[in-house]
Amino acid sequence: MTDFTATKRMFHLPEGMTYLDGNSLGPLPLATPQRVGQTLQDEWAEMVITGWNRAEWIHQPARLGDRIGRLIGAPEGTCVVGDTLSIKVFQALAAALALRPDRKVVLSDTGNFPSDLYIAQGLLGALGQDLELRVVAPEEVADHITDEIAVLMLTEVDYRTGRKHDMAALTAKAHGAGAITVWDLAHSAGALPVDVTGAKADFAVGCTYKFLNGGPGAPAFIFVAPQHAMQARPILAGWLGHAAPFAFEAAYRPADGIARMRVGTPPIIQMAALEAALNIWDHVDMNDLRTRSIELSERFIHAVTQACPDLTLASPTDPAQRGSQVSFHFHEGYAAMQAVIARGIIGDFRAPDIMRFGITPLYLDEADIDHAAAQIAEVINSKEWDRPEFKVRAAVT
Amino acid sequence: MTDFTATKRMFHLPEGMTYLDGNSLGPLPLATPQRVGQTLQDEWAEMVITGWNRAEWIHQPARLGDRIGRLIGAPEGTCVVGDTLSIKVFQALAAALALRPDRKVVLSDTGNFPSDLYIAQGLLGALGQDLELRVVAPEEVADHITDEIAVLMLTEVDYRTGRKHDMAALTAKAHGAGAITVWDLAHSAGALPVDVTGAKADFAVGCTYKFLNGGPGAPAFIFVAPQHAMQARPILAGWLGHAAPFAFEAAYRPADGIARMRVGTPPIIQMAALEAALNIWDHVDMNDLRTRSIELSERFIHAVTQACPDLTLASPTDPAQRGSQVSFHFHEGYAAMQAVIARGIIGDFRAPDIMRFGITPLYLDEADIDHAAAQIAEVINSKEWDRPEFKVRAAVT
Repeated sequence: MTDFTATKRMFHLPEGMTYLDGNSLGPLPLATPQRVGQTLQDEWAEMVITGWNRAEWIHQPARLGDRIGRLIGAPEGTCVVGDTLSIKVFQALAAALALRPDRKVVLSDTGNFPSDLYIAQGLLGALGQDLELRVVAPEEVADHITDEIAVLMLTEVDYRTGRKHDMAALTAKAHGAGAITVWDLAHSAGALPVDVTGAKADFAVGCTYKFLNGGPGAPAFIFVAPQHAMQARPILAGWLGHAAPFAFEAAYRPADGIARMRVGTPPIIQMAALEAALNIWDHVDMNDLRTRSIELSERFIHAVTQACPDLTLASPTDPAQRGSQVSFHFHEGYAAMQAVIARGIIGDFRAPDIMRFGITPLYLDEADIDHAAAQIAEVINSKEWDRPEFKVRAAVT
Repeated sequence: MTDFTATKRMFHLPEGMTYLDGNSLGPLPLATPQRVGQTLQDEWAEMVITGWNRAEWIHQPARLGDRIGRLIGAPEGTCVVGDTLSIKVFQALAAALALRPDRKVVLSDTGNFPSDLYIAQGLLGALGQDLELRVVAPEEVADHITDEIAVLMLTEVDYRTGRKHDMAALTAKAHGAGAITVWDLAHSAGALPVDVTGAKADFAVGCTYKFLNGGPGAPAFIFVAPQHAMQARPILAGWLGHAAPFAFEAAYRPADGIARMRVGTPPIIQMAALEAALNIWDHVDMNDLRTRSIELSERFIHAVTQACPDLTLASPTDPAQRGSQVSFHFHEGYAAMQAVIARGIIGDFRAPDIMRFGITPLYLDEADIDHAAAQIAEVINSKEWDRPEFKVRAAVT
């Protein structure tokens, strides 16, 4: 049984702040500064270049990849860390398309994170060849899976509403139509149980700064199913994905397996922070996490909808259809979120009118949920949001 | 006049180590741990998600880009930091090719870093369209610049030999033939004066963990000449390169200017380390650095070649033709370098037979050079390298 009182003590939670934005950026694990300091002072400072061997920096992308793999049902040696999620989406989509050279359509949905769609637009535009990105409503995805589709590219959990796709069912349907799947787990990894093996996902990607708490700008990860690992042609043919990086050969030869999805020199300092964060997951059972996430989410939804008739639930009412966030529509959502933040309740706003709250059992409990709901109710019902200072848009929303 | 005694005091240099590998990974600046600690403890810990606005993380890629821009002759707003060098090469080459859609040949040389060639192979292979990567000997590049060439893609300073291309002359010749240039400054930025504006370079990229001392896995940079900045089509169409990232529009619209070369969420912790390292450059005049680099390099070459008749200089003898490193051919170069390293003199080996030493005036002086040369001479002349333990290959060479 996971001890969530113990996990909460593993984080720095700022005084006076109730943090419901762990779906955007997780808080600092208390062990992180020391682990980062170790990389700076014991490794970089003392070993300098020899740290690549002596501190085994060179193996860190694979080692951390395997640790994330355990959280998403990926076998050892099928997941690697590096770059940003946008880059990993690009790699996965390019490799998936290369597996279906006779097909022209990438199918995605309007619930996908825009960057995934942008990346697809950039890639398809460059590749030409009449490739088409077809974007449909989330609930219509299944009906659009036909034998035209080369790649089904979806984010499992919608970044705005928390609506969760059925990864296994859609993957099965895609495979039935001869398509390859690329799943973005940005809002899934560390948020709920994921089983890429059970779901038979072909490619999966995700980031580590949200529910995994790797820190701002923490690197991304990519999973390639074992049956594709030797066929997946790397469009980003970087030297650390080469079969023999230090032979400095003239021609690119991809490494065996997932290592070919490495590109350039990996971010050692960011990975040290990520490693400290991943240690926390050794204490967590993902099924316990899911149970707790649903308890806290239901409690939050109940409290907010009871107290705030002006807010409409944007998330599915059925917990099984949700990830680990709760969102509400509100016509003055931006200003209201600023007012809520001013009271120390941290959520975020997503255009056009969504107030979004992450439910993260590792460091949130009933008292946090009740306090947050009460503060939101005061802001909404007193129209506190209607002050000019809450309407000024910041660079990052 | 730059005070190199003062800059040397700004670095942590391990006891008993003479570090001639700053062309591979620069040592830790003393100010870095505190700056990184500030990002962890004052920014991430206390501000969490609000750090994107309150600590201005969102502007860090542009701000650090401008600081690097000053070291390479790039005007404000033409240089941005992020990703790895491999990714930045990919972006620059794709954008350059898109500016010459009627041409089919990318010209490079065998002195280019293999990863740049791999990245070109991956990109050209994916784009198809009969694109060709033509790789010639460094001294033959000029003769191969014809009106067939779409893009001339070169690394200014050869990673093995330190041989330096004439960036201005080759760029002029390329422009005369109607070609676009992509310059890799990995071994130039922080190593010698660079003037991308004066040389009329179209695109330039580089890394920050070598001569710039940004730390292991520090992010890369990309420069786009102002006249191309609005035409350069981003193949990596990530959300932070979008004109309005937080509007979450369905279609990609590139930001104005260099911002479109941003891709995903940038590595905030690595950038904090890089910022501390860049502060040192406020105390450095690049012409002073060059003078000092040549003095120390000449002293090193003289001492080593005098003492070790078995070593052959692999670098140009004319200092004007060199970057800031000195390399020697030696038939047992790998083992010899391991033996030299065992004596605390850190250089590195590059296949097939190169012993490579970085000359970095920020933290090396005459005493270091003389000590290193004497130790190398002992290893070579006593055949100390002929011990079995020095012949075991490590993961990273």
